Formats: sequence, structure tokens, C-alpha cells
Amino acid sequence: MTSWNDPEIAGVRALLAARQPGPDAPPPTVAERRAAMDAAGEMGALPTGCFHEPVTLGGVRCERVVPQGAVAGRAILYLHGGAYTAGSPRSHRPMVARIAEAARSVAIAADYRLGHEHRFPAAVEDAVAAYRGLLEGGADPRRLIVAGDSAGGGLALALALALKGEGLPQPAGVFVISPWADLTQSGASYRTKAETDPMISKAGLDQNALMYLGGLDARDPLASPVFGAFEGVAPVLIQTGSEETLLSDSITMADVLAHARVEVRLEVWPEMIHVFHAWGGGLQAARRAIRLAGAWMEDRFAP
Amino acid sequence: MTSWNDPEIAGVRALLAARQPGPDAPPPTVAERRAAMDAAGEMGALPTGCFHEPVTLGGVRCERVVPQGAVAGRAILYLHGGAYTAGSPRSHRPMVARIAEAARSVAIAADYRLGHEHRFPAAVEDAVAAYRGLLEGGADPRRLIVAGDSAGGGLALALALALKGEGLPQPAGVFVISPWADLTQSGASYRTKAETDPMISKAGLDQNALMYLGGLDARDPLASPVFGAFEGVAPVLIQTGSEETLLSDSITMADVLAHARVEVRLEVWPEMIHVFHAWGGGLQAARRAIRLAGAWMEDRFAP
Repeated sequence: MTSWNDPEIAGVRALLAARQPGPDAPPPTVAERRAAMDAAGEMGALPTGCFHEPVTLGGVRCERVVPQGAVAGRAILYLHGGAYTAGSPRSHRPMVARIAEAARSVAIAADYRLGHEHRFPAAVEDAVAAYRGLLEGGADPRRLIVAGDSAGGGLALALALALKGEGLPQPAGVFVISPWADLTQSGASYRTKAETDPMISKAGLDQNALMYLGGLDARDPLASPVFGAFEGVAPVLIQTGSEETLLSDSITMADVLAHARVEVRLEVWPEMIHVFHAWGGGLQAARRAIRLAGAWMEDRFAP
Repeated sequence: MTSWNDPEIAGVRALLAARQPGPDAPPPTVAERRAAMDAAGEMGALPTGCFHEPVTLGGVRCERVVPQGAVAGRAILYLHGGAYTAGSPRSHRPMVARIAEAARSVAIAADYRLGHEHRFPAAVEDAVAAYRGLLEGGADPRRLIVAGDSAGGGLALALALALKGEGLPQPAGVFVISPWADLTQSGASYRTKAETDPMISKAGLDQNALMYLGGLDARDPLASPVFGAFEGVAPVLIQTGSEETLLSDSITMADVLAHARVEVRLEVWPEMIHVFHAWGGGLQAARRAIRLAGAWMEDRFAP
């Protein structure tokens, strides 16, 4: 049994364990999973003075999150996690707001289409459409950051690839948290971290990959960016926890980006779990990671 | 033929190419290589107001480099590069001084024993002895950083492992530049970056590994830290260039540290070459990397 030096992450783990359904409970339906994530997001506190409003960008429903102190002209296009089958701007609003506040920028969270109703590449198409909508609205790409967590982190990397493919300008940077970047689930950490990851299992990801891909090839770089050719994309910051089954996705992604001459910074946060940033209220490491990411984004935004 | 976006690194490459001996020139002897490195170091400018003096720590000859603005009580134990067979505090003095200045700390550069005269683990023993000497002199390990480049980067990681093995306290952090962390030369970048690395080749490293190891096993973790068990060592910052045959050593090292729950930050600098920090005078990326590393070290030093 592993013991934890950080008492706060031990507390988060206790909370997660207490939320586990009993052994005889039926697995939640997709609709239940989505509703639970949205409810959790609605309950979370937003930073003082932060507001949000619905907007439409390139035909995609989005939510604009405006923290106090946002610098005019900056924007973060945020792609939420949820294994490509759940999650929304609502479910991720508190974390998105804290990230936006740290970068002194508004965030636009895209409500991209999800599997199983809409299979790959619908999510990528929506991300591209929202990004294009920002450009058409006059946004300066040098003052845009693309960000995302988990599946949204993989989607952010896929978006950078897709922009390259379509000849659209790159953003100023790509910031990803615990990205799911390999839908073939081939990383060593699926084995080495299976015991200590309290949230994500290979079996669960396999199931969601199937719902998202609907039989299409998981090795498509827009589904699994680890197979992509990233030469020329924007600088990338990857933040991940050391206790993730998805740890290897971050390492492999850093390797792929480095070989492609992309400026990349990989931060591994010891003892931390999948998208630990979501626990900002009770976890100092989450607040420190968001502060460091904010400074990184501020360095990348053109003046 | 690769073209470079950074005109400064193109200039550095032109300088390196001009220094190449002709095809008929005999390869330099070990003594010539050492003398050339020292001469280059002696010619480099030091930051204004920086001075240096010989000191002895734990029986190891060292050089103490004192930049303006050094905060009392801090120290960086610096382990120079040179493939374990060349290099000295003199050869690396300008770079060490800039790193020390950025961290607002004195640096102690150890003149550890080199192969082929002194084979492994003489270098590790000297690094441990110098570290122990710092502690015995009253240094607070929470205000010590261990740093190094190339072979010295591998040695810094080996030192962290050796400290763990001997039950000595870890330093506040380990900062390594382009570490040579795998003396079996097994990384993919020996192939993928062979064309674009203007300095380091697998053949050269094989030869130096032989001189250092003198027939001992390259898989010893104190020679090749990628094979080490790093649980419990200090946080690590790795900075490397994207055009290095040694790139994979950095990626693998980050992977090994992450799996061992060590706080690790890996920065890959696009288009940059092996220990690009040494070109601080003419290379903005070198100055930016040193500035970022300085901030990282400042964050780790206890007040």
C-alpha cells in the first residue's frame, strides 16, 4: 500500500473512495455520468467577480468565462475532458475559471459534440470551427491559447495538428492537463500505475474510445495525437500527475513533440492524480500548477 | 537539409563547422581535448563583479564561483561536462558563473577525477565527497542545488541516487542540462538526431564510455541513471535541445523520474544543440533557459 506525503491528496483520495458506488450498484448510464459531472461543476465556487455567458463561435455553442483582470484581446479556447463522451463547459466551469484567472484572459469553453451520438471526428471539427470563429471575429492568434484536460487535452493537440493541416495560424501556445493522447492505450503506465490511479482504468478508456471512434482507426493522429507529425505547431505545456494510468501519454507526447522540434515543457507533479487541477479548492498543488500554467500562458501571449 | 528559424543557432552551427579539423587531421589526444576546453573557458567573459577562488571540499579540489547578489547560505554544487574524460571548473567557468548569477547563489564546481586515468566510480565518489564536505561545513541541504551538464548532468543524477543509498539528505533540487544518462547509448535519438547534432556522435560516446567504465557494466545506475530507482530524490529540472543525439536520455530520464514520483520538469528547446547554455553570449535561447533555470532554483532554495 502506497502512503502519501501530501495530506491533501490523501484527503482527495478518501473523498473519491467514498463516492465509489457499491459493488452491486449498476454502472451509471452515459446520461447519468453527464448529469453528475455537470452537477459537480455547478456546485464548485467561481473566483470572485468571475462571470460567464453563452456564446456561439463558428456555429458551435460555447461558454465565455470572464475572470476579473482579464487583459483585452486575449482568449483561451478550452476543451473540456470527459473521455469524449461526457463533460461540458458547465462541468468544468470552476477549473476553467481558475485557469483563465491565472492567465489573465477570458476563456471560451467549447461545447463540442460527444460520442456515442457523434463519432470522431465531430469533436475535432467543432474545435476547428470554434477556433476559426475566433479568428473570424478578429482574434489575433498570437493572443490565443488552446487548452484542455484529459480527452480535451488530446483534442487540443489534435486541434493544433488540424490547424496545421488546414493552413490556419497556430495559437500562441497549447496547454494540456493529463492529456489522453493515445486511444490505443499502449502506454506502460496502464500497467505501472493501475494500482494507484483512483479514477481512470484501461477498461474504462477502451469502452469510451469505442464510443467515440465507432469502429474508426484509433491510430488516426486526430484521435491519437501521439501518432501525429507536429513540426511547426505552437509551444506546448503538459502538466500531469505521477499517479496516472495516463502518465505515459504525457511522456510519449513530450517525446513526439521534442523530436518534431516543438518547444515543450513537461511537468510531472508527484503523487498527483488525473486532472488534479480540478481540486483547486483543497489542494495546494493544484493551485500551484494553475499558477505556473498561468505564468507560462502570460509569457506566450503577444503584448 | 534542415533550415533553422533561429538565426543565432545557425551562427553557432557555422562557428562549430569552421572549427572542425580537416579530414586528414589526426584526432586530438585526450590532453589536447582537455587543453582546448580549458582554453575556451578561460577566454569566455564572466558576469560583472563575479570572482572565483580555489577551495577544497571533502578532499576534492573545487572552484568557488561567486556572482554579485549571491544570497548567503545558498550553494550550487556544479558537475561539469566533458564525457567523463575531459572538462574542468575552468572550462565551464563562464557558464557556471551565469547559472550561479541567475540563481543568486555561489557555485562550487568540483574538479572530480576523470577517465581514463580514474575509472568509474571515482567521479561519483568525488561528487559525494564534495557534497558531504558542504554538509560538514555547515551547509543546509535545503539550500543546496546539485547541477551539471552532459556527463556532469548524468553525474548529478547519479549523485542524487548515491546520496539516497548512503542515507545523506537530498539537496533542494537537481538541475541538469542535456544529461548523458544512459552509457549504453540505447536512445532513439542516436539515430533520429544523428544528422542534426553538430557535436555529439554515438561513436564518440561509446569511446568515452569505455574510457570511463574501463570494462565495468554500463548498466550500473551510478553510471547510467536511467537504470536507477529514484523514489524519494529531490525535484529535477531537465533542459535539453531538440537537436541532440542525447535527446532520448532526457526523455527517458523524465519517464523514470515520473514513474518514481519525483517532481520533474522537462524543457525541450527547439532547434537547440547539446549544452546550448554554453553559448550565452550570442544566443538568446541560452540566456532565457538560464533565466528560467535560475527562477526554478530560486523557488527551490529554502528561505
